[in-house]
This record gives sequence, C-alpha cells and structure tokens, in this order.
Amino acid sequence: MKRIENFKSIIDKYEIIFFDAFGVIKTYQGLVPGIENTFAYLAAQKKEYYIVTNDASRSPVQLAESYHKQGLTAVTADRIVSSGMLTKEYLDLKVPDGIVAYLGTPESSHYIETSGLNTLPMSRINSSNIDKVSAMIFLDDEGFDWCDDLNKTVNLLRKKTIPVIVANTDHAYPLSVNDVSIAIGGIAAMIENIVGKKFIRFGKPDSQMFMFAYDLIREYRPISKKEIVMVGDTLQTDILGGNKFGLDTVLVLSGNTLPGDADTRITATGIMPTYICENAVVQSGEFGF
Amino acid sequence: MKRIENFKSIIDKYEIIFFDAFGVIKTYQGLVPGIENTFAYLAAQKKEYYIVTNDASRSPVQLAESYHKQGLTAVTADRIVSSGMLTKEYLDLKVPDGIVAYLGTPESSHYIETSGLNTLPMSRINSSNIDKVSAMIFLDDEGFDWCDDLNKTVNLLRKKTIPVIVANTDHAYPLSVNDVSIAIGGIAAMIENIVGKKFIRFGKPDSQMFMFAYDLIREYRPISKKEIVMVGDTLQTDILGGNKFGLDTVLVLSGNTLPGDADTRITATGIMPTYICENAVVQSGEFGF
Amino acid sequence: MKRIENFKSIIDKYEIIFFDAFGVIKTYQGLVPGIENTFAYLAAQKKEYYIVTNDASRSPVQLAESYHKQGLTAVTADRIVSSGMLTKEYLDLKVPDGIVAYLGTPESSHYIETSGLNTLPMSRINSSNIDKVSAMIFLDDEGFDWCDDLNKTVNLLRKKTIPVIVANTDHAYPLSVNDVSIAIGGIAAMIENIVGKKFIRFGKPDSQMFMFAYDLIREYRPISKKEIVMVGDTLQTDILGGNKFGLDTVLVLSGNTLPGDADTRITATGIMPTYICENAVVQSGEFGF
Amino acid sequence: MKRIENFKSIIDKYEIIFFDAFGVIKTYQGLVPGIENTFAYLAAQKKEYYIVTNDASRSPVQLAESYHKQGLTAVTADRIVSSGMLTKEYLDLKVPDGIVAYLGTPESSHYIETSGLNTLPMSRINSSNIDKVSAMIFLDDEGFDWCDDLNKTVNLLRKKTIPVIVANTDHAYPLSVNDVSIAIGGIAAMIENIVGKKFIRFGKPDSQMFMFAYDLIREYRPISKKEIVMVGDTLQTDILGGNKFGLDTVLVLSGNTLPGDADTRITATGIMPTYICENAVVQSGEFGF
Repeated sequence: MKRIENFKSIIDKYEIIFFDAFGVIKTYQGLVPGIENTFAYLAAQKKEYYIVTNDASRSPVQLAESYHKQGLTAVTADRIVSSGMLTKEYLDLKVPDGIVAYLGTPESSHYIETSGLNTLPMSRINSSNIDKVSAMIFLDDEGFDWCDDLNKTVNLLRKKTIPVIVANTDHAYPLSVNDVSIAIGGIAAMIENIVGKKFIRFGKPDSQMFMFAYDLIREYRPISKKEIVMVGDTLQTDILGGNKFGLDTVLVLSGNTLPGDADTRITATGIMPTYICENAVVQSGEFGF
Repeated sequence: MKRIENFKSIIDKYEIIFFDAFGVIKTYQGLVPGIENTFAYLAAQKKEYYIVTNDASRSPVQLAESYHKQGLTAVTADRIVSSGMLTKEYLDLKVPDGIVAYLGTPESSHYIETSGLNTLPMSRINSSNIDKVSAMIFLDDEGFDWCDDLNKTVNLLRKKTIPVIVANTDHAYPLSVNDVSIAIGGIAAMIENIVGKKFIRFGKPDSQMFMFAYDLIREYRPISKKEIVMVGDTLQTDILGGNKFGLDTVLVLSGNTLPGDADTRITATGIMPTYICENAVVQSGEFGF
Repeated sequence: MKRIENFKSIIDKYEIIFFDAFGVIKTYQGLVPGIENTFAYLAAQKKEYYIVTNDASRSPVQLAESYHKQGLTAVTADRIVSSGMLTKEYLDLKVPDGIVAYLGTPESSHYIETSGLNTLPMSRINSSNIDKVSAMIFLDDEGFDWCDDLNKTVNLLRKKTIPVIVANTDHAYPLSVNDVSIAIGGIAAMIENIVGKKFIRFGKPDSQMFMFAYDLIREYRPISKKEIVMVGDTLQTDILGGNKFGLDTVLVLSGNTLPGDADTRITATGIMPTYICENAVVQSGEFGF
Repeated sequence: MKRIENFKSIIDKYEIIFFDAFGVIKTYQGLVPGIENTFAYLAAQKKEYYIVTNDASRSPVQLAESYHKQGLTAVTADRIVSSGMLTKEYLDLKVPDGIVAYLGTPESSHYIETSGLNTLPMSRINSSNIDKVSAMIFLDDEGFDWCDDLNKTVNLLRKKTIPVIVANTDHAYPLSVNDVSIAIGGIAAMIENIVGKKFIRFGKPDSQMFMFAYDLIREYRPISKKEIVMVGDTLQTDILGGNKFGLDTVLVLSGNTLPGDADTRITATGIMPTYICENAVVQSGEFGF
C-alpha cells in the first residue's frame, strides 16, 4: 500500500509544478477549498506552475477569468495550457486557408481563428460553402443539435478528406457528485468509428500537451524534466501522460480517483504515480502566513 | 476473381432461402426492381424463405405492411425474423416484471411489451419510477432527444445494474445514394464504452438471429443446414454470420458491396461468400410466367 | 449485495443443468472436492446435464477419460459439448475437401478430421501442399514452435483467403494458484490484428455453444429454455453467454471469480447472474445417501 | 488524384529533413538505389537531416555502422533518432535503480543500460532476483524463446506493478517482397491485453519521437516547425505523426504504400501527406555532380 504524503513537502522538491484543472484545482462545486493557499505558497517560494487541461471549450483568457470570478486571482491566462491551444497551433501550421467547420459553442471557436481561416458551426455548412471546408474540429459537447449536426458531420467526413481534430480527448466529464456528461471526445470516437478515418487528438495523456508547456518554460529559462512534477487526479490521463513524458507525478485524491480506490486502480492499470497526496492544498499553517 | 453467377441457378439447389432485407429486397429508393418475381418463383417452386433483418424499429407485422404498400404482397409477417424479435424473446425469458426503459420511437417499443412489463421512453424515467426500471433497450435512432436522453441513459446505467439490450447492431445505415445515418448500434457502442458495462447485442452476424429462423422451420419440418442458403449484401453481417452458422452464402451486389469492390473486400476481410450474384432477382423470363 | 444461495436448492428448480468445466467441476488441482456428489444427485433425481466447455485441445472422449481417471466416472463423452465440436461441425458443413492447417497438438487435430479432409500441423505446410490448404484452425497453445509457426501462419493468411477458425476464445487460462498461460485465443487475436482479416470464433459467450447443447437435448425430448440453468465461474463467458441465450445462470465462486470480488465485478461489468453459489457441490448429507 | 511531385523540388523548400528509415532509405533488399545522392545533395546544400526510426533493436552507432557497410557513409550516429533512445531517456528519468527485464537480443539491451540499472533477459529472471526488477522492456522479436519467455512475462507483469515500455510500436515488419515478421509491438499488444495493464509506447506516430529530434536541433540553432519536412512510406506512422506534430509531410512510394494504392489509402484513412513522391532519391543529374 502506497503511503499518502504531504503535498507541500513534495512540491518543495521541484522547481516547476504542472497542475491538472478539474479534480485538482476545482470540482463541479467550485474551487477546491484552500487551493488559493497553494498558489500563494508557490508565489512566495518563487516557484512556477502551469495548468495543463483537456479543456477546449474556452480560451485561456476565459478560463483564467472563471478562476478569478471564483476568487482564485493568482492564476493568469499565460499559465494555462489547454488542448485548444494545440488545436490552434495545428491550424496555424497546417491549414493555411478556408473554412474550419466545428462542433461546439461559438465561444469555443473564436480563439482558434487565425488570419486566413474562418470558423463556421457545422449547422451552417451547406452546398454553397462545403467546397471551402479545409478542416473539421470537435471542440465542445454544447452549442449544437446532436442529432442533426452529428449526422451532418458523418456525411461531411465521408465525402471530404480533410484533417479532423479532436480538441478534447475525454469521453465523459463530471457534472455533479452523481452525474456525468458525455464529452465531445466520446462523440468524436463514435464518429471516427463510423467513418473509418483517423482523427488527430490533442489532450493528455498525449505527450504534445506536456511538450507545449515544457516549451513555454524553455523560452525564458533552461529546465530539466527532473525539476518538474505533474499533479493530477486521473491515472489514465495526468499520471500516464506525465510519466511517459519523463516527469515525476502526484496523484491527488480530490477528484476522479477516490481515496479507497487508489491502490486497487494503480495495481489494475499498472499506472504508478511517484507520490499520492490527499489533495493539492498547502495548508496556510504550513508556511507561516 | 470470383465468378458472378445466376441467382436462379443457385437457389434451385436449396430448399430454404434466408434473405437480408436492406440492399437485397429493398433500398432507400424502394423495392429492388423485379424482386417480386423472386418471391413468385419461390412460391411456384414451393420453396420457403425467411427475411432475417437487423431492424428493431418496427414489428414483423409493420415490416410486412410496408412491403405490401410497396407492391410486394407475397411477404407475410410470419416470414420475417428481426433482431427486435430476439429482444422480445429475451425479455420474455429473463425480465419477469418492472419497467423497460427504451430509446426509440413509441412504435418500436409496443411489440416488445409482454404481460408483466411496461415500456417507457427514457425521457419519462424519473425519480418516481427509476426504482422499477428492470432493463434498458436501444431500439431505434429516432423518437428521442439525442443530447438529453443519451446523457440520461449514461447516468441511469452508471447507477443501476440492469440488463441492457442493443436491438440493432448496425453503426450506420444508408439514407440515400450519398448519405448515411448514425444507427442506434453506433450510439449504443459509445455509451457502452463510457459506462464500461457489457451490453447484450442481437443482430447479424450473431448466430442467434440465424438460430431463431432455423428453429421456426424446425417446428414444422426437419431440415439440415446444408439445405439453406443465406442471401445478403454485406460481408461483415450477412455473409460472416451465415458462414459461421454453417450455411452456404450468396453475396449480392445490389446494396452495400459495389460490383467493383467485391473481390478486394473479400480478400481484405477474409470473409468469403459461397457465391456472388448481381442481385437477388429471378428474371420473369427465367421461369416462364 | 447479492445473497449466496444453496446450490442444491437452485438445481432443484430446473430440469437440465449446463456446467462449465474449469473452475466449476475441476481446477488446476484436480476435481473440485465433492463434485461427484452433484452428479450422483443429478442421476438420483433423473436430471440431465451437459458440460459446455471452451476446450478444443481434446475430443469429448478424451475429456471424459480424464474425468474418469480423476474419479468422476459419471461424466460420459456424450454429455460434453466443446468448442472443438463446433469447429468440426463447421468443417463438415463448409469445407468439403483439401488440407486443414492447424496450430495445436496432433491429438487436438484428430477428432476434427472428416471424410474428405486431412489435417496438417502448420510446420508441415510447404510449397508442395500450400495450394491444397482450404482452412486454418487455432486449436491449442501447445504442440508447435511459437516463433516459427506463428510467423508462418501470418504469411500463409496474408497470401490465401481461406476460412480461419479459432476453436477456443479464451486469451489465457489458469495453470496454478499463481500462474496463467497464454491461450490460443489470445495468440489468434494477435494474428487476426496483424493480417486484418476476420476469423471465426467458437466458444462461450457465443450463443452457438449453447445452441449446440440445446439441440442435442431437443433431439430426444421437448424442452423450454426456462427449464435449463447454466452454472459457471466466469462472468464474461459463462454468465454473459447463458444470459444472452435466455437461460437462468448461477455464478459459482470456486474458480475465476473470487468470493470477495463477485459483487464488485457484477456492478462493474453489468453482467448479472440469476444466482450466486459458493460452488457447484451438492453436499452428500443434503440428499440422504 | 494527388499529383506525384519531384523530391528535389520539395526538399529545396525546407531547412531540415526528417527521414523514416525502412521503405525510404533502405528496404529488405538493401539501400534504396541512388539514396546516397540524396545525402550528397543535402551536404552540398548544407541542409540538415535526421533519421527518425521505430527501431529499438540496435543503438544509433550500430544502425549507422550498418548504413556504412552498405555504402551509405554519409549517415552518422548523431543523425539517428530511434524509439530505443526514448526508452533510454525514460529509464534515465524515471527508473533510478534495480533490474530492467527485457525481451530482445543482448545487443538491443546494452545501449539502454544506465549508471544504476542492470538489464537482464526475461529468461534469467528468477526467484532470486525478481524482487529487484524495477521495469520491463519489449525491445526486439529476436533473442528469446517465444513460448517460455512470453508466458514468463505475462506472469511477471501480473504479479508486479512496474513500468512496462514498448520500444517499437510496429505490429509487423517486412522480411522480403512477400513475407513479413511479427514485430515486438504486436507481441506486446497481446500481452497488454492479457494482463490488462497500460504499457508505455515509444515510436511514431507518437509525438515524442518527433520532439526528440526537434529538441536535438534546437540545442544548436533556432528552428520553426515550418522549416522541417517529414519523409516516410507509411501513412499511419510517418505521415500521421508528422502531421500531428505540425510538420509538412512527404509520402514516398518506395515502401509500405504502393503507387497504385496511395490515393485509395489516403481517402480511406483520411491521413493526408502534404506531398507524394515516387521515392526519396535526388537524381545525380539534378544537381550537376
């Protein structure tokens, strides 16, 4: 049985902390109580951090705003790395012009627009503009009619050979203590299976997410992977992805993995965090503020 | 390269013919032209037949009526074996009482009702009746709100351990010469993957479909599998299932498998029909009517 | 939490009992202690039984002999239904002549030979006989050189479009209290994935196994599925298959499913036995012998 | 139908070229005829290149030597990025001490040894050293007894929760114009399925391979992804992986993808190279040597 360790004593050993968002910093009920202390401590210790999240429904600026509204003012947009940003980078590099058809809310589509590209919701693709569609993106499970637009997507992708990007790899996400919601990653997997084509997925556990954050750091300072620790609540995304990228990892028990299940799940999946902590909270008493 | 053979010369060798419906007897445009001759010929030759179909959206009586309306009066309800009938048999044998929640049209649910069971669409399951839900069935892709009712289904199945039946294994079905529709089997696979539980599937290529028709025959006459031939347009369902059940099989090129693709697909999948025919039509000139 | 029930009181309710072999009648240590009482009780009550097993490594006669040697003399060959028998039926119906190449021991191949067919181990297929190979069968994980013969199988199946039968669907089987062995079903799945063709699988949970036993009974007496109960130790094969075929099912805790795990696994997989019993033993005191 | 373009005119547009090895630089028959001209041209133009290969059976030094023996003296070890190097990096970062059990030849294991680690073939793991095993690696399909050592691997991984690394993701590799060999990636997938644990895979199409090469370049010069082109013969690894990493891609028709199949496969898979070329050869006449 793996020992539960003190979160502060672990982050003291690293220079840079990567955090997952959902289940670590916030839950469906709002911020994890006391999490603001963690960011105050990091600031006091001059340690850096990034929030690495499979959330493509909003831009980093909007994600940061939502933290601020909830009272976590320390987290700024430049500290957020989302699967939506990888999507935007892909479009910048690989799709020079045309229309990008998407499934998601209008908000989710704005920040991926680039100079030469227009985004259009799937519902507005028709015979007059279908020839200009140069890519298709699964962004969010909201903002469209599932029956109409999913059938339309299947038929668009059967007819056109274009890059298809899944900006969120999750198949479901928690809605409340009892309920989950089908996520756009689950819907995309169904459609990929029906059309038989290969989609491009961005999001943990894929290394490209970690690489993106790692590269942001290297732009202003040298860093070794040994100086970074990844903190997450999900073995299959945060811990598997962090391990594979070569980082040490902390499993926290405040989200997806319940305290009573951690050992069983680690043994069953073979995915081993370097450490296990109750949550990612540094107690205010722990650093004398 | 496999030779295209004459359909009449093949069915002359067998006592009983099993037909797939879609792509063999009818297409999205209506009946396959001339197919009524085939049934006239079978009647003249006193050969029996069954239509073995992955269609759970209507009862055999309703399916027969739709043939009659299109002018194929020879096909009667007692000759139709559908995946919906296997679903009904399952409920008869294994679910003695309670409410069966379903996704599909009201029509699709009526014929599976049995003495002790009520069927209710997923939209009408709520806190007052959830305790009585004793099974859940995926019947048809129409008749419900995809977003609301699929999310409701996911959460129902996470909370209750009940038998879940998928009455149609297809992931998509043809709508027109160019377009397909997502089928309830594809939706069910997405939800099975999200909830991580094992659903019960009825439909070709599963042997139980063939067994059901085979048993109907044996109730009134002895028969050997060598005297039956299965006619279908899809390698992965009709031909694979027929072969595995021990039947000779005819691939027709009037539906899912295009004339130019047959050899490539047979080699690629390793699924070999005993014969290939252009379609399942006996020409009227062939039997002197 | 599901109640553990008394095995005798359950079989008293049924006319015919289907037993899985491994984990129910025997384990790697030999016969389940006291299991001979169960068969004595069935004889005294004039109840019938069949052993329905995913074992294609030996013929029913050889399987019965192995029970006799261990002291269970009541079980006769005509009461054993194996996935090997379905393989033999398939060859009888669908492969009229030629050579059947196989992976397995020579013993496993003898009983599937039919009038027009020769069986040859994969190691003896060469340029002089490859043209006559009309089917390929995965029978057993023993009796061949894994490296040489698996590579040979891959290349044979890439070149020839022939039926490929997997006579045992299990991916691993228990060898001792701590160890398992890779089963031929696991090896076949690897090769199916590499060659990209569709193999034909016989074995539980597939309905064809249950139908074979069901048909044996119907040859000499009328029977309803409601009068049969399936007894097994594995949710994914015995219980899922029995349920789907429409039978009531008993999960015994003497094999694959440990007493402490039964409820968790039933909830996780959604596969529900009708009953749970400690084992399939009728205590001798229970029927006054 | 996509146009076949001239290879020289394409690489003229990029600063750095990534090459796949098998099917691009060499085939089972040896070097691709004329490929030395390509490397002479790159040297003359002062363009850089990396060979990015899913080959973990030998170290970069040994891989370079094998090119030299065949007459391609231009390729040096520092230009080779293999999935074995990612494996070594993983061990350096994540496995500080103990024994690394491996499947493969002794040569394949030497170069992954690091200061604190010993490598031992699976055949030499026994009760005296099993407690010290801290990781397991699938390196090569040669150098071990498949039956004994694969069964041993399954049982080791059932008992110990340790990181498992698959150093080559391919499921098969070409041996001659007609034959393939089962690769260690295919074997690893079978075992992963049996033990139910999550293995760590290194190799294209995974981004980490491309990032490793990208990082090597950035150590000595600034570079943008727009200045790099990936050249490969396989859509599912080279082209999919290159595209996802944000690189332009060239599909060459000298290996896995045959000239007549390219368009069909691109449409079927949805994986689109930026360009298609016959091969990666710059004709000597093209640059006036």
